[in-house]
Amino acid sequence: MLRRNQISLKNSVKVAFYSTSKHAAAGANKNNGNSVANTSHDVSVKQKIFITDPISPGSVFFLPNGAKIFNKLVQFMKLQQEHKFGFKEVITPIIYRKSLWEQSGHWENYKEDMFKVEGQDISKEEYGLKPMNCPGHCMIFKKFDRSYHELPLRLSDFSPLHRNEASGALSGLTRVRKFHQDDGHIFCTKEQVEEEIIKCLKMVDLCYSRVFNFNKSKNNDSSSYIIKLSTRPDKYIGDLEIWNHAEDTLKSILEKSGKKWDINEGDGAFYGPKIDILVKDHNNKTHQVATIQLDFQLPERFNLRYKDKDNSYKRPIMIHRAAFGSLERFIAMLIDSNEGKWPFWLNPRQAMIIPVNTKIKSHVSESKQLASKLRGESADLDDLTPVPFNSFHFNVDVDLRSEPVGYRIKDAIMKNYSYLIIIGDEEVETGRYAIRTSEDRRLQHLTEDEIFDKFMKLEKNYK
Amino acid sequence: MLRRNQISLKNSVKVAFYSTSKHAAAGANKNNGNSVANTSHDVSVKQKIFITDPISPGSVFFLPNGAKIFNKLVQFMKLQQEHKFGFKEVITPIIYRKSLWEQSGHWENYKEDMFKVEGQDISKEEYGLKPMNCPGHCMIFKKFDRSYHELPLRLSDFSPLHRNEASGALSGLTRVRKFHQDDGHIFCTKEQVEEEIIKCLKMVDLCYSRVFNFNKSKNNDSSSYIIKLSTRPDKYIGDLEIWNHAEDTLKSILEKSGKKWDINEGDGAFYGPKIDILVKDHNNKTHQVATIQLDFQLPERFNLRYKDKDNSYKRPIMIHRAAFGSLERFIAMLIDSNEGKWPFWLNPRQAMIIPVNTKIKSHVSESKQLASKLRGESADLDDLTPVPFNSFHFNVDVDLRSEPVGYRIKDAIMKNYSYLIIIGDEEVETGRYAIRTSEDRRLQHLTEDEIFDKFMKLEKNYK
Repeated sequence: MLRRNQISLKNSVKVAFYSTSKHAAAGANKNNGNSVANTSHDVSVKQKIFITDPISPGSVFFLPNGAKIFNKLVQFMKLQQEHKFGFKEVITPIIYRKSLWEQSGHWENYKEDMFKVEGQDISKEEYGLKPMNCPGHCMIFKKFDRSYHELPLRLSDFSPLHRNEASGALSGLTRVRKFHQDDGHIFCTKEQVEEEIIKCLKMVDLCYSRVFNFNKSKNNDSSSYIIKLSTRPDKYIGDLEIWNHAEDTLKSILEKSGKKWDINEGDGAFYGPKIDILVKDHNNKTHQVATIQLDFQLPERFNLRYKDKDNSYKRPIMIHRAAFGSLERFIAMLIDSNEGKWPFWLNPRQAMIIPVNTKIKSHVSESKQLASKLRGESADLDDLTPVPFNSFHFNVDVDLRSEPVGYRIKDAIMKNYSYLIIIGDEEVETGRYAIRTSEDRRLQHLTEDEIFDKFMKLEKNYK
Repeated sequence: MLRRNQISLKNSVKVAFYSTSKHAAAGANKNNGNSVANTSHDVSVKQKIFITDPISPGSVFFLPNGAKIFNKLVQFMKLQQEHKFGFKEVITPIIYRKSLWEQSGHWENYKEDMFKVEGQDISKEEYGLKPMNCPGHCMIFKKFDRSYHELPLRLSDFSPLHRNEASGALSGLTRVRKFHQDDGHIFCTKEQVEEEIIKCLKMVDLCYSRVFNFNKSKNNDSSSYIIKLSTRPDKYIGDLEIWNHAEDTLKSILEKSGKKWDINEGDGAFYGPKIDILVKDHNNKTHQVATIQLDFQLPERFNLRYKDKDNSYKRPIMIHRAAFGSLERFIAMLIDSNEGKWPFWLNPRQAMIIPVNTKIKSHVSESKQLASKLRGESADLDDLTPVPFNSFHFNVDVDLRSEPVGYRIKDAIMKNYSYLIIIGDEEVETGRYAIRTSEDRRLQHLTEDEIFDKFMKLEKNYK
């Protein structure tokens, strides 16, 4: 019991400290973790998405298929953040001197969850391996004389983060020590808070209503995600009036949104209230993904300030927010929801090409040529023209085994290829290839270019 | 003197150990570092590319403009590696238990250049912060039963790496403790070595002859880079016959290439010979960038093996290679070479739009609209259509200051914008905007779409 209490205490500290619960991926959800962990483990073994090894407990090795999914998600998020929501990406250090963590309060409140880093030369300098990006972003804010003109300043970061979770609790992608977030911090004035929170909610909507869909149909939910507002806890710091104003702001924004939301009385972080977004797994259990947190504390601790219109210095407010939360956990939730049936754009197995008769040269050569075209390969090394920027490259394989076509089709379906392309005499002759989805037997006959365009449209639109 | 000797010894160990000199960015080039460091510092301050801070000595904070350059370079390299040279990207842990570094030999030979990581909970587990990716890639190779079918297996990785350089030697982007490489390891058979090395050299050619150009014109060189072959040192491990074969292979490949190359007798790594690629800075001093290294040692230490055609197990050979070397150093070399005049595709300041009269509404509104179009902004948050995958977004600003047009043009040129677009009455009326480069006064008149297409072609082709 004591041990359990210790764990539970440790976790409640984590949830309450700064942007931690933003990163629920790294912690929490003890009860629900296993089922999602199991599904994602099974699919990962089949699809070679990731491995783990005791040589680095809690750090995932993403295999090529996993790295493709990871990179696509990051690319999606960068495009939305930068070109729709006005974020600017920065790349920040991973180790910082102990004094930074003392200033931020982590060394005092979060120490046992942090890894210590030490030089092994004579200097023996002591660092902390970052568990969060916020202090680094405060350093960037502080480095320049900031004016009200520059606010809101929205910084985003995809750095690897490390938290020293108990080794017994580590599991696949759901409970990890190394993880990545679609992390962002907004530095803004008091007056800008409302608009910024609304934008954060729009981002959540874009993700969870528009592009990703977690077990919505299964659960017959009217909404694809759950909203919780966590208010002032018993132990809090800061001014009561600011708290009330902040809570009222969040409530009024949620009211205006017309969405269903619950209140989690007294479950806010000690520095400010927060909005948490949860989705359901296939067992109907909820998991936190996105979060939006108001923070009046770090700007104080780092003495952040900007020059206002009247030339006086003012303290900015910080909003910590993430839409995916932890990329690792988000991928586990995706797998739990799709059971390995990835949408086309994320699928490491987008199409399988099946030559009808592998002994007929033209079936095979046409299959290989189509694969090369869809992959956007540029294999001629005598031509040093670089592969163009922003070009499309689809994950296409050719099944050259001398098995019956029906067998190879079934096999490709079992392996979750999105599309099957079958090439026989007729296809070679007409240059129109038989293409079907894995769900629908009906064949279309399309040219090479038509298939490429079809795939391009799907990927462009995250389908 | 002793101190100097110590430093020099430390560095020679680093150059000689595994893939270290692949990462010359992190070490070496003491004499040349300063000038490149100075240029890159000046340009960076002007263009807000990066900052450093004593809170994390030797780790760079890339500001939004720097992150854009960094990400473009990574994107370029990923596309070439994956779709022209057959690499597969993986994402690997950053901390590994001490035992991995003992197995790889780093703990013995490289310890004082490595950071130690420790849990601060009761477990006190001890890890090493990775200075190189090779042992992690060996773990991935080893995790599966490998067959000759899978070879050559080419893994790439852009992980952050840490090396504990002496604090006195740290400088901007050129001597750092945290850096990123376009790292890659090829696992192949003895018979495949030649072809793989040739491909690595093609990659070098693509980079340094085709896309990037370091002070070539200044130096009147016939070639844009220098090739050195470093042969067996006095202290070496492994079989003499294998060494001779490896050196002969490299020599014969270099001979066939028809390129000029020098020999660096006895300067190879202790585990195998290597080909180093160097470029010149504006002072005509050489800096190592790319490297290609043969390694018979790590596969032995990690007991790597694959099943050959005859069902016997064989030891693969490892090739360590990088084309950029360290991204941080590469960016410093680019800045040294271009003095802040970035090619269009890398420029964080691609175009400045200048409305002729900032008091005339149509000049201003048309300028803003063009900027929004070229940026590919999707600012209407009532429309939750996501920003499309692989879409183009140009770095375009509008100069709304009520200064004379001539003044604003000069200012934009000074700030190294690639293109200037001037919008006055005529432009508003015809919808054809006056556009010029910063070097060439001659104006073209192009529509919005024509400008977008022009920019897209430049970026697609890395111009």
